[in-house]
Amino acid sequence: MTNFPLLECTNDPADVRALSREQLGQLTQELRGFILESVAQTGGHLSSNLGTVELTVALHHVFNTPDDKIIWDVGHQSYGHKILTGRREQMHSLRQLGGLSGFPKRSESVYDAFGTAHSSTSISAALGMAAAARHLGLKHRQHIAIIGDGALTGGMAFEAMNNAGVTDDINLLVILNDNDMSISPPVGAMNRYLAKLLSGDFVNNTRDKLKKLLKGAPPVLEFAKRFEEHTKGMFVPATMFEEFGFNYIGPINGHDLDSLLPTLENLKNRGGVQFLHIITKKGQGYKLAEDDPIMYHGPSTFNPQQGIVASTAPKKITFTQVFGQWVCDMAAADSRLVAITPAMREGSGLVEFEAQYPQRYFDVGIAEQHSATFAAGLACDGLKPVLAIYSTFLQRAYDQVIHDIALQNLDVTFAIDRAGLVGADGATHAGVYDIAYMRCIPNIVIATPSDEAETRALLSSAYQFNGPAAVRYPRGSGTGAVPATDVQPLPVGQAKVVRQGERVAILAFGTLLHPAALSAEQHNATLVDMRWVKPLDGVLLAQLAQTHTHFVTIEDSAKQGGAGSAVGEWLAAHGYTAKILNLGLPDQFIDQGDYMALYAAHGLDEKSIASTIATFVA
Amino acid sequence: MTNFPLLECTNDPADVRALSREQLGQLTQELRGFILESVAQTGGHLSSNLGTVELTVALHHVFNTPDDKIIWDVGHQSYGHKILTGRREQMHSLRQLGGLSGFPKRSESVYDAFGTAHSSTSISAALGMAAAARHLGLKHRQHIAIIGDGALTGGMAFEAMNNAGVTDDINLLVILNDNDMSISPPVGAMNRYLAKLLSGDFVNNTRDKLKKLLKGAPPVLEFAKRFEEHTKGMFVPATMFEEFGFNYIGPINGHDLDSLLPTLENLKNRGGVQFLHIITKKGQGYKLAEDDPIMYHGPSTFNPQQGIVASTAPKKITFTQVFGQWVCDMAAADSRLVAITPAMREGSGLVEFEAQYPQRYFDVGIAEQHSATFAAGLACDGLKPVLAIYSTFLQRAYDQVIHDIALQNLDVTFAIDRAGLVGADGATHAGVYDIAYMRCIPNIVIATPSDEAETRALLSSAYQFNGPAAVRYPRGSGTGAVPATDVQPLPVGQAKVVRQGERVAILAFGTLLHPAALSAEQHNATLVDMRWVKPLDGVLLAQLAQTHTHFVTIEDSAKQGGAGSAVGEWLAAHGYTAKILNLGLPDQFIDQGDYMALYAAHGLDEKSIASTIATFVA
Repeated sequence: MTNFPLLECTNDPADVRALSREQLGQLTQELRGFILESVAQTGGHLSSNLGTVELTVALHHVFNTPDDKIIWDVGHQSYGHKILTGRREQMHSLRQLGGLSGFPKRSESVYDAFGTAHSSTSISAALGMAAAARHLGLKHRQHIAIIGDGALTGGMAFEAMNNAGVTDDINLLVILNDNDMSISPPVGAMNRYLAKLLSGDFVNNTRDKLKKLLKGAPPVLEFAKRFEEHTKGMFVPATMFEEFGFNYIGPINGHDLDSLLPTLENLKNRGGVQFLHIITKKGQGYKLAEDDPIMYHGPSTFNPQQGIVASTAPKKITFTQVFGQWVCDMAAADSRLVAITPAMREGSGLVEFEAQYPQRYFDVGIAEQHSATFAAGLACDGLKPVLAIYSTFLQRAYDQVIHDIALQNLDVTFAIDRAGLVGADGATHAGVYDIAYMRCIPNIVIATPSDEAETRALLSSAYQFNGPAAVRYPRGSGTGAVPATDVQPLPVGQAKVVRQGERVAILAFGTLLHPAALSAEQHNATLVDMRWVKPLDGVLLAQLAQTHTHFVTIEDSAKQGGAGSAVGEWLAAHGYTAKILNLGLPDQFIDQGDYMALYAAHGLDEKSIASTIATFVA
Repeated sequence: MTNFPLLECTNDPADVRALSREQLGQLTQELRGFILESVAQTGGHLSSNLGTVELTVALHHVFNTPDDKIIWDVGHQSYGHKILTGRREQMHSLRQLGGLSGFPKRSESVYDAFGTAHSSTSISAALGMAAAARHLGLKHRQHIAIIGDGALTGGMAFEAMNNAGVTDDINLLVILNDNDMSISPPVGAMNRYLAKLLSGDFVNNTRDKLKKLLKGAPPVLEFAKRFEEHTKGMFVPATMFEEFGFNYIGPINGHDLDSLLPTLENLKNRGGVQFLHIITKKGQGYKLAEDDPIMYHGPSTFNPQQGIVASTAPKKITFTQVFGQWVCDMAAADSRLVAITPAMREGSGLVEFEAQYPQRYFDVGIAEQHSATFAAGLACDGLKPVLAIYSTFLQRAYDQVIHDIALQNLDVTFAIDRAGLVGADGATHAGVYDIAYMRCIPNIVIATPSDEAETRALLSSAYQFNGPAAVRYPRGSGTGAVPATDVQPLPVGQAKVVRQGERVAILAFGTLLHPAALSAEQHNATLVDMRWVKPLDGVLLAQLAQTHTHFVTIEDSAKQGGAGSAVGEWLAAHGYTAKILNLGLPDQFIDQGDYMALYAAHGLDEKSIASTIATFVA
């Protein structure tokens, strides 16, 4: 490990505040180096954190944290903040079981004013704190939301700005960290607008026109002088942010402390609603990341000298890749297919689809609500939209799924990635509520494939189903079952008996079918790959209920209202009184860690499952 | 009924297209008169429909509906559209069982291009259709979203505009129906901005400054002429909508056919992304509604000559009023209480609170996502926010409830109105999923009071609970149980045995306790007012499970994942195998109608409950 002499003496923001201008420069260099080494060792977000080093140092130097509140939107740029706020020595545990979270977390530090991870929440939260400060008479407290240009396209950021701009007597500073890059390349009118602000065209265009106009006018000195005086205030059109009631400052270079420090000092002493536009570069200071910020967005461990080296070891394909291949193949088979992603082209496996079908690909930006209703609109005319979305982000479009898609029984396919626990990203990204929140919605069907091959086949089933249909599949890979190359569907609502036994029936929803197989052998139980949580296979359930006394359900999702709960409802509704054991995730938020370890910790590995079932059937 | 000679010959938009300019004027007069008489007879939305008469006539005259698509945002201004599209003679059945929906509905008419009711969806849907038209080669089809100034503050409208403005080769016309009024008075920066556009200050301010500046300049004719030529294009700053990539036209008078018709004709032949800003008045043409558009927003039946007359008959207080009184009393008792509404001051019962505590009242506009995270921000500092929201609209803030409130275990109280079926507003407004979608969320507690008195006490319980807590209560009134005047809580998670019986236990969640009482008598069953769906009263359930063989659960919400499902999970988890009957709403969307009749139709009136239970226990 490199030496970081100044950083190693910096254990608290008070230390940052005591540094000279020169020392601050040194601190940014050391902090950048430390972040690079640290992330290379643990994996995690890199580009975004390298891009906010100067901002982080400047904020803690200028503001009186933790009394002043800093809210990092999304929060994947908060590593520098963690390092400067007493967590430097825990950075080796980042995103690991029992270690530091990869996002700001209120329970982790008093400096983490608000927990973030999902996009576009920071202005709302900061505005709430600012209104609370007004209520409590904390007149000098500052509230700072740092939001990226990608996150700014999320509708709730707009809702918050709409409110902030007309709220009196508050201190709110929104810092737009404009790096022209969410995880996928940026899209939308707002991005184009920011580029215009940045280029200066906005300001200069009008002045140029005026100068041209005045070219032939008589050289009256008095007039020319007055013209100069007035132009700035008069001819510069207000920015959109000023129309929203903010005082707009910028754009300034977010890597230049000599710009940042005086600007922030100035803003510190102003009340009201301020908007500072800074320009940064993702990956700043690490050439490889600067050149490919997407590859260095969230790398695994790597050697910083060498950079990320593509692994040559043969790798199992992921569920995401299964989807990515399927959507291309189905698009080839059916010209009605269009695909939508809310800013997750890479994560959802749509890179190849975009390349092959650019006209049928829609990246709508970070805009989950819109993505669902936009899909509904596409479906009205007989197109067959596929909305690729993470389970945790579909929560953002919940009302649109109910009100705009299911209620109208529109033919939208939901490819729900990152179902179940997700590992290093922790509780904020867990996809464990989707079964409960979707199965109460009429008209929708929901598939829970147990492996890669079945994922492909059930995607075809969902696609061919004439109505809303969801397939949920986890992060990473499964058993490695090789998917077919065709687009043949499996029947909707039909389960598959994997093993015929007696007395005990184990009903598995999703990939936990496999760790449950051992128990089925041990107890000569019937093992069923249920495949569909809605509709349930009633024919099979009736047969099983007549021949089995004990039912075990297993799923990688919340037990409350989950698939096991659906089985319980079905049995009760049909007059059966079997003994039922519901295995699934408990009623608590589960922090980050290796996800197999987390399942084990919650009784969902092969050994725990066997032991729990043994007790149940005894 | 008045005579409407022209309207009565107008059975289809083709008839509207055939009318002369003069006849169109007559048609608007007749249509306005018909709407007034019709709504006075059926109840329904009035002010909004009187405000869009000219727009409706002009749209159907100019555009080629139904090939051209009209999407009415929210849809409570679509009565004129329904009348002109073949549904005039069914208007007497509006919002009634088996009758016309109060909102556009795809299954009702080919002219209803998209079903709406929740706010701010129209631009997303229209953009989806426009993209589909591009895909299908329908080059001349127009897609029109009509959105109010209130709905424009919803974040998803912004998400849609952000996408629309950069989408090539589509035909999209967004009409901003600016009437300076959502249901509650408008709030926010966008509204202030629209007022500025309307006043013309925006345009004139710059020109005035220039004129003043040039006052002392030499009178050079050539220069002055050029100045005149250039000012318009040059000095008028782009509107925000133009920054978003739209071509902005307006504002124009939305009640003046001589403005509307040529403007729409002009827009009809233009492709691309257009934004037309029209100014209308809610209640236009009916003096009483013009003067009090809020009172005439959604009246019951009334005499149009007389206007709405306040009923002198003593009325039972509603659950909404119980909340309204409680929130004032609790605010008096605890200075930490602040209340938030997303644009539903009247509907949520916060008029009195605002009057008493203006500094502690936050109407955030139609912005449910923001409302929840804003509440989270307020709670970070020890304030105790109460978010008053309809069950159906809380769906919009689902991710924020999970990610920003529950995950951080923040102390937010949710006062959830309009739980269960809501009557005339129909499926779009049903509050029947909240139990399923909330009870899977860790940390939250959820109360289901059975009457008015309990609602007040459980609101106090939820408020005093240190974490997220929800109380759900229905529209209208219940048994009339008089609430206490104090703010004493009931214990969290404790049920109340209403009647001790044997063998059969009837567990009621919410107001359906009362129609279930007869069955309890008939079968000498134990009857329990469960009060809390989360946490369940485990102590009582264990006692009951040891002494009863049959369990009946009853709730006014979806059975899938609902309260009955929670009881089933609990019994299974604790090793009990009782017979269980879950009563609740079926897995289907339920259209409008008197809500007691709807409960009866779904087996949830006293008689049906008795009959179903009799069969179950036999």
